[in-house]
Parts: sequence; structure tokens; C-alpha cells
Amino acid sequence: MAVYTQLTNETIAELVEKDYGLGQLAFALGIAQGVENSNYLLDIVTAEGQELKTILTLYEKRVAPEDLPFFLALMQHLAARGVNCPVPLKRKDGQVLSVAGGRPSAMVTFLHGRSRTVLKNTHVAAVGAALAALHQAAEDFPMIRANALSLSGWQALADALRGRLDEIAPGLEALVAEELRYLAAHWPDVPALPRGIIHADLFPDNVFFDDERLTGIIDFYFACEDFFAYDLAIVLNAWCFEVGKEFNATKSRLLLQAYQSVRPLTPSEKEAFPVLVRGAALRFLLTRAYDLLHRNKDALVTPKDPLEYLAKLRFHQQVRGGQEYGLS
Amino acid sequence: MAVYTQLTNETIAELVEKDYGLGQLAFALGIAQGVENSNYLLDIVTAEGQELKTILTLYEKRVAPEDLPFFLALMQHLAARGVNCPVPLKRKDGQVLSVAGGRPSAMVTFLHGRSRTVLKNTHVAAVGAALAALHQAAEDFPMIRANALSLSGWQALADALRGRLDEIAPGLEALVAEELRYLAAHWPDVPALPRGIIHADLFPDNVFFDDERLTGIIDFYFACEDFFAYDLAIVLNAWCFEVGKEFNATKSRLLLQAYQSVRPLTPSEKEAFPVLVRGAALRFLLTRAYDLLHRNKDALVTPKDPLEYLAKLRFHQQVRGGQEYGLS
Repeated sequence: MAVYTQLTNETIAELVEKDYGLGQLAFALGIAQGVENSNYLLDIVTAEGQELKTILTLYEKRVAPEDLPFFLALMQHLAARGVNCPVPLKRKDGQVLSVAGGRPSAMVTFLHGRSRTVLKNTHVAAVGAALAALHQAAEDFPMIRANALSLSGWQALADALRGRLDEIAPGLEALVAEELRYLAAHWPDVPALPRGIIHADLFPDNVFFDDERLTGIIDFYFACEDFFAYDLAIVLNAWCFEVGKEFNATKSRLLLQAYQSVRPLTPSEKEAFPVLVRGAALRFLLTRAYDLLHRNKDALVTPKDPLEYLAKLRFHQQVRGGQEYGLS
Repeated sequence: MAVYTQLTNETIAELVEKDYGLGQLAFALGIAQGVENSNYLLDIVTAEGQELKTILTLYEKRVAPEDLPFFLALMQHLAARGVNCPVPLKRKDGQVLSVAGGRPSAMVTFLHGRSRTVLKNTHVAAVGAALAALHQAAEDFPMIRANALSLSGWQALADALRGRLDEIAPGLEALVAEELRYLAAHWPDVPALPRGIIHADLFPDNVFFDDERLTGIIDFYFACEDFFAYDLAIVLNAWCFEVGKEFNATKSRLLLQAYQSVRPLTPSEKEAFPVLVRGAALRFLLTRAYDLLHRNKDALVTPKDPLEYLAKLRFHQQVRGGQEYGLS
């Protein structure tokens, strides 16, 4: 929770007024939410006297500058196809990237609505349908970004953590090694399943609602090319367990039904789904373990708990087939 | 720069909708600005369909809960007399204080405009007039809060820092001791000068402007009873030096003229002014030195530089009379 790069109001006003020509800056607030980048809410009065809210993002160290054109073009592409996502605004010179406070930056439209921590069934169903629509909208997107956090990436992460995983939970290192062997043997080959651009991080804090209506999806900075059904597996892990870590079969069934009401899964996707769900659980177990073991003890950011994903992985390991997730 | 106490959107929505009955929460953003308390910008849709922006403040450790009724009543009093300051909103039960996330909290109106780091002469004149108006508006405020950071408070701070001040600058301890002796000998007696409620922390980040028009004054959490002219001396120190630490005589003259256009200084206030300005410089030198030497190295907050106020104090020590500040 932080703003890493501090800008003066004068710097922000100059960007808004001179570089973007959007109007006059009324106020700017650094936003505490968000752990990767620095974000400001800007309130602008346009030449027509309208209030315009935007988000100014300064990309910090975890975002590779060479990936920014992909992320920004993807948001433009999705928004043009009806996905409620932030739209990058163009500067007067036609560019979408700026430099502010020494960091690459972009300005996007502000999305109304708010994320939930208490998830109702209707929220889960709404995110399933929105994810399928996102996959369809991205189908003709012409750019590619490989998923650095798929099977080989997990193996590299586990190698980097060798000898330390048991600090988090006794036996974790052996469990991870065994799971990686299982996934290496069962992970689908690239041509086996429908692929395309996936969000890859569609957690509840990245989805806004107005009551039970989904109003926006944010944070495309993990988007990449991979199996569509793997994205759905990430969402299942993130949205279909209760706070006490128990699996909620009703939410899972509603999620998969809602997804398939827009984009039906193929037989091969259904067959592979239990493996994809295990892979998605391992992915967040490993990155959270990495973040916990490498955390900067000076930072205010509280690392997310890897054990939450260990519990999810253990649940998936004892599942006997897709019907337990509500696949028919 | 932080939100120390994190609230879920559901908790904030319940507060807005049930406890305050203000309407429906559209969104809530944790605000990175502010080092003392946790602040959220709330965007609310009222029953009439109007957008209402408020600030929800959770009071953290540096604010004494027993002082909150004073601060909140003061803002209500000043706002009722035309001062542009945040107005505490009442809950449905008539109270202005709540408990949220385990902290005492209050909700106040949002003020438009933005603070400046590049100060024009017109900004400085505007703050002078606004300060005088604030002093007049507070004259019939019935509550009292002693200034813990006046002469005896500075002496206590210097005692607490004994043996450590030279870590900040060689010779600082002797300079502070000598200055405290000077101030003890020259500081006005309580009845000598007009007194009342002062803001006591009117730095540029606590004043909002729309272009050159002052639109708001915030952060009354140091407000207390003391000499009005001492408040003006604090403002002179904060607003009338350039970034390179040089005194700006034009800004000082404009500040004092603008203040006196609303509330003329008495002859005794003018005579005491050079001493008050030295005291104000020492006050911020000492609190900044304390914060620097006691900083939590884990915090993201960058301590403010005590040496800025050492330079200001040294300037004031060689001033020969009020005319150098623009007093006639």
C-alpha cells in the first residue's frame, strides 16, 4: 500500500494541462491501494466544464517498460470491444506513454464501482461471464506476450527457493517438487487447448461492482498468452473458496456455468481442467512464497499468505474429476 | 505516506449507508498523502442521486482521542463562520465520532482545490488574509486546548534530545540551548499579546487553491490556544522562504499586509514579532530533529529536514527588527 514515486501537484497539473490537454487539474490524490505501481486519482475540469476522473499510473520496478505497449494496446483493444476496462488516454502528441517523476507513466479512464471482499454468488457468476467475454474480445488482438509464470517459470521459482520453502511450512519443499513432477507429466501441450490473451490475475480486488452488476476489470499487468481455461482456473482459485479456506462448490458451479454461457469449454478443456486448477494454485503458492521470503522488511506492504494457496492445492490434489468443480 | 488502518469496502459502505445514512457508497480510495492518520476519499451517491465526496479519517496514535471533540467542534465552528474548512458530518445518532477498524474516526466534507509547492506571491497574500479571518472566526469558540509545543514544550523536547542533536549538525545542541535561553528571556507573557485559537500548522500542504483563489484549509489537529501573532510567525517561516532557504522579503511583506488588512497587529504584537518568528523556527527545528532521531526505519515516511529550520532560525537570529519582515 504505497505511492512509491511522489509527484508535486504542479507536475501533475502540467502533465494534465500541457501534455494531455485534458483541461484543468482540480485535485490529485495519491492512492494507497496497489502494491506494484504508484497511482494517483486525478480530478480534471474539462474545457466544457465537465468533471473528468482519471488514474495516473507510474510504473515501478516490477513492470518491464518493454511490456507497456502490450498492456496499453490490450486495454484499448478490449475497451473498443465493450470490455469495461481502463482506457489509456492519448497525449496531444498521440502517444500513450509519458515519463513522470522519472518513471514511465500512463493515464487511463477511471472506472466506477468498488471491489468486494465479501463475495456473493451473483458476483462470482458475473466474473465468470465477464472473463469469457474478455477472452472473446481479445481473440483478434495482434500482439503476444509469453506467460513467464507457467510451468517452466514455476520450476525456476522452485529452484530459486530451494532449501527455504520449509521455512514457510515443514514438508513444503517436497510437496512442491512432487507437484511439479505431476504437472510436468500432465500439463497440456500448447496446441491441445484453445489459447489466447488471458488476464492471469483476476482476483476480487481487480473487479469492480455496482451492487451486483460488474462495472469494471482493472490491472492488466500480468496479461499474457496462455490457455483460456487456465485463466478460468485462476479465477476459480481466487473466487470459489471461503475465507476459512473451504471450497465452495456452489460458487464453482455458478462460475463455470456463467463462463460457459458465453464461451462453452471444449471437451479437452473440461478434461484438462483439474490439472489447470492445480497449476494455478501452485503458481500463486510459489509467487507468494517467493514474495514472503524476499520481502523488504522496511516496506509497509504485508505479503500475501502462501499457506492459503497450499490449502487450495491440497484440496485440488484430492479431487477426482471435473464434476467436483461443477463441470458436467 | 500511508494508510495505517485498512478497511474493507464493505466496512466503509456499512458506515456510510447505515451509520451516517448518507446514501450509497460508489467507491472508496485510501489516500497516500498524510503521515499522521489514515484517510479515505469516499464517493457517495445520495438518495437524490447527487454525488457527494467525503473524507473518512481514522485517527492513529499521534492524535489523542480526548482531543477529538475539540478539533471536530472547532471545524464546525469555523465552517459556520465562513472559513473554508472540512465540516464534520453527523451520524444518524447525532454523533460525529465513530469507531472504524478499531480506531476513532470521523467523516468530513471534501474540499476542492489543491495545495501548491510552487508558491506565488498571490498564494502567500491569500493565506495571510485567510489566517486573520480564521483567528477572528475562532474568537468566540468556547473550548480550550493548551499548546503543548510552546516554550516549556520546546525545553522538554531539547532535554529529551540531549546528547543527540549534534548527530544532526555539529554544534546544534549548543545553538539550541542558547536559543532557548534567549527565548525564555524574551518570550511574551501570556497577557501581553492577543490570544485565541490558532491553527499552529498552516504549511502549504494544508492549504488548497483553485488557481490563485484559496479554497480551503485542512488539518486542524495541532490547533490550540496561543498568541495569534505566533500563528502568523509559523506561516511566515513556512511560506516566505525559497526552496534554496533564502528569505523572501517581498512575500513576507505581502503576508503581513494581507493579514493586517483583516486583523491589524497591535503595537505589542509588532514589537514581539521577531521573537515569535524565532520561536516558531525553533519549534519546527526541534520536532523535526525529534522525528528524525526517533524515526521508524521501517516506515515509508521520509522525515522532514530539521536543517531547513536551522537555516531559518539562523536567518532570524541576525534580523535587527520587524521592519526586515515588512512590518512598518
